Amino acid sequence: MIENDILLRTIKKEVVVRPPIWLMRQAGRILPEYRAIRSSLSGFIELVTTPHLAAEVTIQPVDILGVDAAIIFSDILVIPECMGLEYELIEKKGPYFPKTIETAADIAKLEYGQVAAEKLDYVFRALEITKKNLAGRVPLIGFSGAPWTLFSYMLEGQGSKTFSKAKAFLYKEPKLAHELLRKITLTVIEYLKLKINAGADVLQIFDSWAGMLDRKLYAEFCLPYLKMIVDEVQGVPKIVFSKGAYFSLDQIIDLGSEVVGLDWTINRTEFRQNYGGEIVVQGNLDPCTLYAAPEDVAKSATELMQDFKRNHIFNLGHGVYPDTPLDNVKHLINTVKAFNYNT
Amino acid sequence: MIENDILLRTIKKEVVVRPPIWLMRQAGRILPEYRAIRSSLSGFIELVTTPHLAAEVTIQPVDILGVDAAIIFSDILVIPECMGLEYELIEKKGPYFPKTIETAADIAKLEYGQVAAEKLDYVFRALEITKKNLAGRVPLIGFSGAPWTLFSYMLEGQGSKTFSKAKAFLYKEPKLAHELLRKITLTVIEYLKLKINAGADVLQIFDSWAGMLDRKLYAEFCLPYLKMIVDEVQGVPKIVFSKGAYFSLDQIIDLGSEVVGLDWTINRTEFRQNYGGEIVVQGNLDPCTLYAAPEDVAKSATELMQDFKRNHIFNLGHGVYPDTPLDNVKHLINTVKAFNYNT
Repeated sequence: MIENDILLRTIKKEVVVRPPIWLMRQAGRILPEYRAIRSSLSGFIELVTTPHLAAEVTIQPVDILGVDAAIIFSDILVIPECMGLEYELIEKKGPYFPKTIETAADIAKLEYGQVAAEKLDYVFRALEITKKNLAGRVPLIGFSGAPWTLFSYMLEGQGSKTFSKAKAFLYKEPKLAHELLRKITLTVIEYLKLKINAGADVLQIFDSWAGMLDRKLYAEFCLPYLKMIVDEVQGVPKIVFSKGAYFSLDQIIDLGSEVVGLDWTINRTEFRQNYGGEIVVQGNLDPCTLYAAPEDVAKSATELMQDFKRNHIFNLGHGVYPDTPLDNVKHLINTVKAFNYNT
Repeated sequence: MIENDILLRTIKKEVVVRPPIWLMRQAGRILPEYRAIRSSLSGFIELVTTPHLAAEVTIQPVDILGVDAAIIFSDILVIPECMGLEYELIEKKGPYFPKTIETAADIAKLEYGQVAAEKLDYVFRALEITKKNLAGRVPLIGFSGAPWTLFSYMLEGQGSKTFSKAKAFLYKEPKLAHELLRKITLTVIEYLKLKINAGADVLQIFDSWAGMLDRKLYAEFCLPYLKMIVDEVQGVPKIVFSKGAYFSLDQIIDLGSEVVGLDWTINRTEFRQNYGGEIVVQGNLDPCTLYAAPEDVAKSATELMQDFKRNHIFNLGHGVYPDTPLDNVKHLINTVKAFNYNT
């Protein structure tokens, strides 16, 4: 059914000659073809909410870079939005919520679950168009922010160096925090189910701010909600990527998602020693490696593949940075595609 | 010679009944008495460069909070400044360098070593005044940014979410990066020696952006320079605090500094299991714990002391955040001072 199914076969632990490759943030940012479309619009949000354009930029890296999967062009902040918190995107500064969550009343007012998720029709339409236009060439990845990461934005209103407002809420108002996390989780679950209905072949859950916590907080405020998602959302494989959560890696593995994403700080050899070769991992090249000379990019990528051995999806350990030299990205992808475990 | 020498005795691994306590960023931010002085001035830099005022705010937390050490009020960015890169401090945004390092010529132009460090006379004067006015009550801690952290600011010009410019330089221009790190290191060494001359009893080296790297980069671009500092600066004990560098902890311990600082993500029980009870550690309460109810603050602090057992300097795992409730800070300090290992 899918022509290039090396990603799906890798997730099923079938024998493949090389790892599949795709890059977090591959749709957008680094491609001139993306920037051309983007610059003709009023802003990022217009692109996210216009299904045929979102589909177009989703497919660009498949055509131009030859990656083994497409990931739908969207934003994790559509979830707070459908729950009732609108966001803006300020150029070069990132997301901004004019209104944030402060009180029990703010949480009580939020919509959640199916009724909220269904509002994101433009995302599902974008998936459907992408699926159709991909015409079975590669699998399509859908995604969501993890509950804690979405919670962080809803409390902070914007990015933060310390996320101390969001963390303070966990310490000061643990019951309210759980109530908000529960509502977010129920929304994420419905959202991901609707993404499967719309054609997603794989799902990734991004916990971008996991590293702000520690093992104890992660166990109390994150893992139970990730577990609900992994258990409830069935039918396609799931990738859980908790950036910075090295301190909870064993418990993240125990969630039972098909794939565990690893950030660039995770020591590959140690990981395989501690957790074995059977876990399918995704990652974890330092995105800054792509600033190096092409031969060094290839060398680092090859070492990485040799370290992880099989059961590995090649990716960066964080989203690709906007000023990454495109030629190096292409060189990386070609290096991975030319790799062979048997030689 | 020093009246309350529990910090120094702990560093020497003598038997003490409780851990000493001081807090990173204790001078400034959270104290109304600090803000009163600060608001009468043109800006942060005026305070840093006016020795008697810097001395005054250094001593405030000793008087008001009863901490077991004073840490000189200053900024890590005085090093880039004395090397030739002036910085500004933009309210609520942090440091900003109008000019950054981009080329070999920029690096060649920098002053470094003794000639650069000696320019920071106002820092040494502040230490002398503090030392005199403390009158032997508690030890005085001097500090410096670690070479990689200073390098990051000199390349980025400001804080960053990814520090991708600074990291890119490591990948693209490793030789030039080493040359710059060497010049910074030679300056830091002279600076710390002059701080000892001016009265510092203990030195702390802050590697605030260590966590942006990984084990391999840390081994190549950070550890050799930290080693030079630890080896060259003799006469007082040194604390090395590499925030986020969990991946290099064993190698940081091997540097041979008297104390190893730990951020809040480090699992205490695991640390003691892996590295034994003989290493003197400093840390590592999550600063956000101080937003909790007072009884929870006390509970967390007590658990922490029980986890580390002896050979421990109580501190946060990051600088205290500006909006921390002052009563909780006092409650924390009182809890630690009332603790007894024997009961």
